[in-house]
Amino acid sequence: MTEPAIVLGANQYGKAEVRVVKVTRDTARHEIEDLNVTSQLRGDFAAAHLAGDNSHVVPTDTQKNTIFAFARDGVGSPEAFLLRLAEHFTGSFDWVTGGRWEAEQFAWQRIPVDGAEHDHAFVRSGKEVRTAVVVADGDDRHVIAGLRELTVLKTTQSGFEGYPKDRYTTLAETSDRILATDVAARWRYGRGDVDYDAVYANVRSLLLEAFAARYSAALQATLFDMGRAVLEAHPEIAEIRFSMPNKHHFVVDLAPFGLENPNEVFFAADRPYGLIEAAVGREGVASPGAAWEGIAGFC
Amino acid sequence: MTEPAIVLGANQYGKAEVRVVKVTRDTARHEIEDLNVTSQLRGDFAAAHLAGDNSHVVPTDTQKNTIFAFARDGVGSPEAFLLRLAEHFTGSFDWVTGGRWEAEQFAWQRIPVDGAEHDHAFVRSGKEVRTAVVVADGDDRHVIAGLRELTVLKTTQSGFEGYPKDRYTTLAETSDRILATDVAARWRYGRGDVDYDAVYANVRSLLLEAFAARYSAALQATLFDMGRAVLEAHPEIAEIRFSMPNKHHFVVDLAPFGLENPNEVFFAADRPYGLIEAAVGREGVASPGAAWEGIAGFC
Amino acid sequence: MTEPAIVLGANQYGKAEVRVVKVTRDTARHEIEDLNVTSQLRGDFAAAHLAGDNSHVVPTDTQKNTIFAFARDGVGSPEAFLLRLAEHFTGSFDWVTGGRWEAEQFAWQRIPVDGAEHDHAFVRSGKEVRTAVVVADGDDRHVIAGLRELTVLKTTQSGFEGYPKDRYTTLAETSDRILATDVAARWRYGRGDVDYDAVYANVRSLLLEAFAARYSAALQATLFDMGRAVLEAHPEIAEIRFSMPNKHHFVVDLAPFGLENPNEVFFAADRPYGLIEAAVGREGVASPGAAWEGIAGFC
Amino acid sequence: MTEPAIVLGANQYGKAEVRVVKVTRDTARHEIEDLNVTSQLRGDFAAAHLAGDNSHVVPTDTQKNTIFAFARDGVGSPEAFLLRLAEHFTGSFDWVTGGRWEAEQFAWQRIPVDGAEHDHAFVRSGKEVRTAVVVADGDDRHVIAGLRELTVLKTTQSGFEGYPKDRYTTLAETSDRILATDVAARWRYGRGDVDYDAVYANVRSLLLEAFAARYSAALQATLFDMGRAVLEAHPEIAEIRFSMPNKHHFVVDLAPFGLENPNEVFFAADRPYGLIEAAVGREGVASPGAAWEGIAGFC
Repeated sequence: MTEPAIVLGANQYGKAEVRVVKVTRDTARHEIEDLNVTSQLRGDFAAAHLAGDNSHVVPTDTQKNTIFAFARDGVGSPEAFLLRLAEHFTGSFDWVTGGRWEAEQFAWQRIPVDGAEHDHAFVRSGKEVRTAVVVADGDDRHVIAGLRELTVLKTTQSGFEGYPKDRYTTLAETSDRILATDVAARWRYGRGDVDYDAVYANVRSLLLEAFAARYSAALQATLFDMGRAVLEAHPEIAEIRFSMPNKHHFVVDLAPFGLENPNEVFFAADRPYGLIEAAVGREGVASPGAAWEGIAGFC
Repeated sequence: MTEPAIVLGANQYGKAEVRVVKVTRDTARHEIEDLNVTSQLRGDFAAAHLAGDNSHVVPTDTQKNTIFAFARDGVGSPEAFLLRLAEHFTGSFDWVTGGRWEAEQFAWQRIPVDGAEHDHAFVRSGKEVRTAVVVADGDDRHVIAGLRELTVLKTTQSGFEGYPKDRYTTLAETSDRILATDVAARWRYGRGDVDYDAVYANVRSLLLEAFAARYSAALQATLFDMGRAVLEAHPEIAEIRFSMPNKHHFVVDLAPFGLENPNEVFFAADRPYGLIEAAVGREGVASPGAAWEGIAGFC
Repeated sequence: MTEPAIVLGANQYGKAEVRVVKVTRDTARHEIEDLNVTSQLRGDFAAAHLAGDNSHVVPTDTQKNTIFAFARDGVGSPEAFLLRLAEHFTGSFDWVTGGRWEAEQFAWQRIPVDGAEHDHAFVRSGKEVRTAVVVADGDDRHVIAGLRELTVLKTTQSGFEGYPKDRYTTLAETSDRILATDVAARWRYGRGDVDYDAVYANVRSLLLEAFAARYSAALQATLFDMGRAVLEAHPEIAEIRFSMPNKHHFVVDLAPFGLENPNEVFFAADRPYGLIEAAVGREGVASPGAAWEGIAGFC
Repeated sequence: MTEPAIVLGANQYGKAEVRVVKVTRDTARHEIEDLNVTSQLRGDFAAAHLAGDNSHVVPTDTQKNTIFAFARDGVGSPEAFLLRLAEHFTGSFDWVTGGRWEAEQFAWQRIPVDGAEHDHAFVRSGKEVRTAVVVADGDDRHVIAGLRELTVLKTTQSGFEGYPKDRYTTLAETSDRILATDVAARWRYGRGDVDYDAVYANVRSLLLEAFAARYSAALQATLFDMGRAVLEAHPEIAEIRFSMPNKHHFVVDLAPFGLENPNEVFFAADRPYGLIEAAVGREGVASPGAAWEGIAGFC
């Protein structure tokens, strides 16, 4: 019996983290768009892997150049920009049958001077990052918007009770604790005619409001609340997925120092942390695996 | 027509990055095992998300405690340790039907003193990290070993030629360049009776040798060489996946200073970088998607 | 001739990065203070270094406990909190003759819900970090406020011309470029009766305004403008020091693609970067070295 | 009474983190040198700050070019390379009266193939980084070598007892604990005719041996042991300074699970950590402040 041949499986390649800044200066009031763009092509690249034949390998350097050249026409929403890149690469090279394009966008505010917003001076606002992914799979286009590092905390109206106990359980139940997380969310659009910037702004608000609104029986329940709020308000969104650490804030025992501590002084721990991940979707609407799949399994 | 109901999709939760150090001190010659362990449970957790009912939510704190308690018996290979955790959690709670357990392991060497290895003093060796993942999916157990941040570089015997040109192509062809990458690889075992530590050590050597051995027509070709070398030597490995940046080293133009630069002085760039990802497998052997799937789509 | 004896030089020790979160919950409208505090003691610790005698070594664990216990009474401004710590440690232990206490403070905003600020739910605001340092040196108390990671950018009104050229100069002069930096500043107060929170807020505004206001002939000139604006407005500040990277944004050459690029598309580079550091002070007012000195020379 | 004029204080500027890789390829057996170089000039730059006059501002871009051009002749030890840069800049521009040049060097090993070291393929070795600083101050040249991120751990022969207790002390005394740290050290040479590479290698060994050798009554005592070992063996070194975190490893309480834990299972904590900093020198030999001073006070 012979061993089966060794073969190439799923693969993609491209240029990662192209830091492009676009300034629009048609008037004295400049606009700025600041993105970190990654382009990855999928298709028939077997010869490059197996035979050292690069005739299908659109250079990653060319992908980078294309990103800069396309920015010359303006970026617009990151989703629209990535869709342009997807059309270009799949339309220009027969053997490119798909790909994955990703962007991070960084927000800037105008610096206030004497009560007015400055024309051309800006300060980075917020620490969270807006994200966008476009996956092309044959003729399909999956558009996934998102954000990460949206750090939120509530000082009460959070607890954790009623969980199963076993011999390794030492945690005490509580109906009053700090709940804190860095929200990372990705939502997939179910149709194409979307005002991506407007929806992004509203989803961000809905996520914050849902985090704040209700008593949290566990981060899982709050996650679902957040997802439901988004899906209820936005029929154009097919599903939303979350990855959220439970950033533990432990009440410090001050009794040895003769002090009581009625949930006032906390130690914010780094590691370990809880990690809650889930998808929230619509009944009967399948999630296309191709929209979400990575290649290398480093998640 | 009513909107479809909003429902919970795929989900998992647990404790991430439990930093456990196990010292074996039966004799004066101590042994050290240093891991970063993440435990994530999958199963029926709908009530927690939908109704604030935590009766199925094995606390992440309990998962952490279990990791420490199990380390009391010794760790062994990270793969074996994660398999123990998987059996425990799926065996102890009816509604836990699977999960994902992951470990990073950090290597230590004994400090040499007067030519001898010290009994209980160690220095961290290498910057690369050994990784392991166990995915339980019903009765299936997928064991995936790996490493990351194995940084390699070759000063010649690398080029990039014969690629397609379009209007955005400015890259010059070369048959002599630096090739550098941080190897991140994950390999999935096709059977269970494996000496994980021995195979790990050998795979690491094979990856290094294959990187060094041949002229590289592109990082894609070298990636496949590396994968093939591993699969040829290890029938117990079903497939191997890579994510490797092409860490660009640009020849500096010294001509303005009256100097030639025959590939001697390079600028090591940070961003953007090439990114090459591929799976290498065996013909006719399907890759179980469940072994590789994440939940939240942050890859 | 004998070698001189080997002796202990300057030294300090303590607990670093105590992450303390204080919630004030006297009313339904909670307040949150979020700090990262480092305590380092200076004094007579020679016996610990030379003879293994710890009778003077106030444990770093005790320093940590003290930080948490003091937070029970409320934090207030980070400067005031560090001054309390300084008084405590120098007043409690004869051999502690000074020290250095440092804090980072993270800002939170109330989450807006239905147009109103929420009582107990918060979102992290901004990416910059407020800093504070108190150095006790005998009876002297040096109070240094600051901030870091205040990222600013102007899209025009910046140039760099008139510099000296030598055989290694290839840079082209320009009167229109992007200027971007991460402001890190520390200002030392010359007297003690200061409303630290109010001054901090105003200094931050002044730094932003001065960055925006004038044409920048070089980052050096803008740095001095920023320092002068602060010192002119705040007689209670004796000096201000800056460390600011020149975060290069390079105009992308789009000519190969048949496109002009009138300062619209830029590549934001990571490394190398310019680095401009300077102190701005008042004539005839010496800067006390003890306020600024580190121990180990890792700056 | 008029306010004193606002004036420029200490300042420096230059190009930071120039990532230069030099390949020596005179024979088939290539050599590689991999550095991260920062150049900062000091001197008369007042006009640039005060009047926007750049006639003294040697561009940071020129400093970068010079680093690459000088690398064309080979790097040698980082200390020697930085000394060449210092001579060049102070010798080429009248108003440059000093400066600070710094390098990080990354180590590479040849990849072993069939038992032999490969000619041109390398793997990064170790995670520690070699550092070098040259400070020019008029005619003085201060040469400071060092390393950082040399991570060491001993599983026993470490304790902490006999410390003072106050109302905030809860720490228990122990004569058996894990001691772990990331060694960061800088040593200043007292004379110039030094084989910097050979001394570096030996100092690294001495630091490791001294860490391992003796019972540690506290990290302070071990720090001094390490410094003394270096100064005793190397009369050419005038002083050595350390910054070392005490990376806490806490014994996990396994009693709730019916397990004893005789110092076998530890939790490795991130923050807070102890931080021990000290200089070790020679009696009667003053440490030149100019060798160690930063400008901006961010340490």
